[in-house]
Amino acid sequence: MHIHVLSLFPDMFSGVFGSSILKKAQEKQAVSLAVTDFRAYSGNKHNQVDDYPYGGGAGMVLKPEPLFQAVEAITANSKKPRIILMCPQGERFTQAKAEELALEEELVFLCGHYEGYDERIREHLVTDEISIGDFVLTGGELGAMTVIDSVVRLLPGVLGNGESPVQDSFSTGLLEHPQYTRPADFRGLKVPDVLLSGNHANIEQWRREQSLYRTWSRRPDLLVNMDLSPAEQKLMTKWENVKNN
Amino acid sequence: MHIHVLSLFPDMFSGVFGSSILKKAQEKQAVSLAVTDFRAYSGNKHNQVDDYPYGGGAGMVLKPEPLFQAVEAITANSKKPRIILMCPQGERFTQAKAEELALEEELVFLCGHYEGYDERIREHLVTDEISIGDFVLTGGELGAMTVIDSVVRLLPGVLGNGESPVQDSFSTGLLEHPQYTRPADFRGLKVPDVLLSGNHANIEQWRREQSLYRTWSRRPDLLVNMDLSPAEQKLMTKWENVKNN
Repeated sequence: MHIHVLSLFPDMFSGVFGSSILKKAQEKQAVSLAVTDFRAYSGNKHNQVDDYPYGGGAGMVLKPEPLFQAVEAITANSKKPRIILMCPQGERFTQAKAEELALEEELVFLCGHYEGYDERIREHLVTDEISIGDFVLTGGELGAMTVIDSVVRLLPGVLGNGESPVQDSFSTGLLEHPQYTRPADFRGLKVPDVLLSGNHANIEQWRREQSLYRTWSRRPDLLVNMDLSPAEQKLMTKWENVKNN
Repeated sequence: MHIHVLSLFPDMFSGVFGSSILKKAQEKQAVSLAVTDFRAYSGNKHNQVDDYPYGGGAGMVLKPEPLFQAVEAITANSKKPRIILMCPQGERFTQAKAEELALEEELVFLCGHYEGYDERIREHLVTDEISIGDFVLTGGELGAMTVIDSVVRLLPGVLGNGESPVQDSFSTGLLEHPQYTRPADFRGLKVPDVLLSGNHANIEQWRREQSLYRTWSRRPDLLVNMDLSPAEQKLMTKWENVKNN
């Protein structure tokens, strides 16, 4: 996969792109990562990439020319890649979207910084608008890094066995159960007996119930379409009763 | 504000902490940012920080000692700061949480990488578990950087006038209206006449309707508790009718 990022702060990417999984994925040639400062495509001698909004108001707006010209330059030899705008108005990023993007051969990310985007960028250049959540960030860079990390780790050959997460909370549909490792007694805080019992059926049942309890108490929205057994339904009714009394 | 991060990949933070707002905020002494590799607190000669899960299963689990000891060392002179664990099971991060955290004097972020966390870390060390969304990342580092960016930009004196975002989508409760800047005609794509009219009442009305339309079409969940005028209610009914026909 080829990933291009357009940003006015290319240095922001050095640490994340040069460490851990993204570093290894590039070494294994599973992905190429390139960051381009689109100020180079301003098309004016002052290298201006933003301007005041028509109609007045605070803040600056990114001009259309620099981003159109930068995208055209870096995708001159591409087959119409997805052009992804990181912005608060975008579709909420999810694991399903990561899996969808992991099937692409090439992705281009556009990151604004402070500024708004001229609407013509959204309407005529971009194929996807993505938001990582309902919070305000200084720019699109951290969102782009987040999407890139979650996509690249899904590419074939990128994750080794030791790196598959214990807590892949979005594969079973439930939040992960509690995990414990050595020591069995840490400052008087002990590992639950069942995990030391060697009885695998009991361990599986305990873990499933703990997962269900954690999901019920923290993220009941995830349970809406879950296929639960009658015994699990009964457990949840019991928890509801305790909570309401 | 003092922010400490505990991570096994401290180099990941260099680009983000050394650029843009986070760089400026440190220069203005609005925040100090420190990253510590908690492998130094392993307490064993092999510098081992994780181990197999009790009860079996894939993946590794972060041991309690290194994180307890690292937190105790870096907070020896602190007044019980918030200790924030980045994890998929955590509370979903929002702008309200950013505003809450921005009132603290000191924050400590714990970032795992690949591994799960021993449950005793969650129960006896951590005060807040935060998730930035329903997607799987390689570690907690990008989540921590995201939370830190959103918190630090709220600290007094950090944002200059030129840096306040046009698109502060979470202050009015509606998504931001479309923005346009020069040129008025870019490759035949024109700026709406109303924005060039100089009629501020019309511009305000157009923007409000565009905000409402964008929110209605992309994020209807944000409208649930909104205080809308009868005229706005009527507009939405009209859009609903068009959509259903």
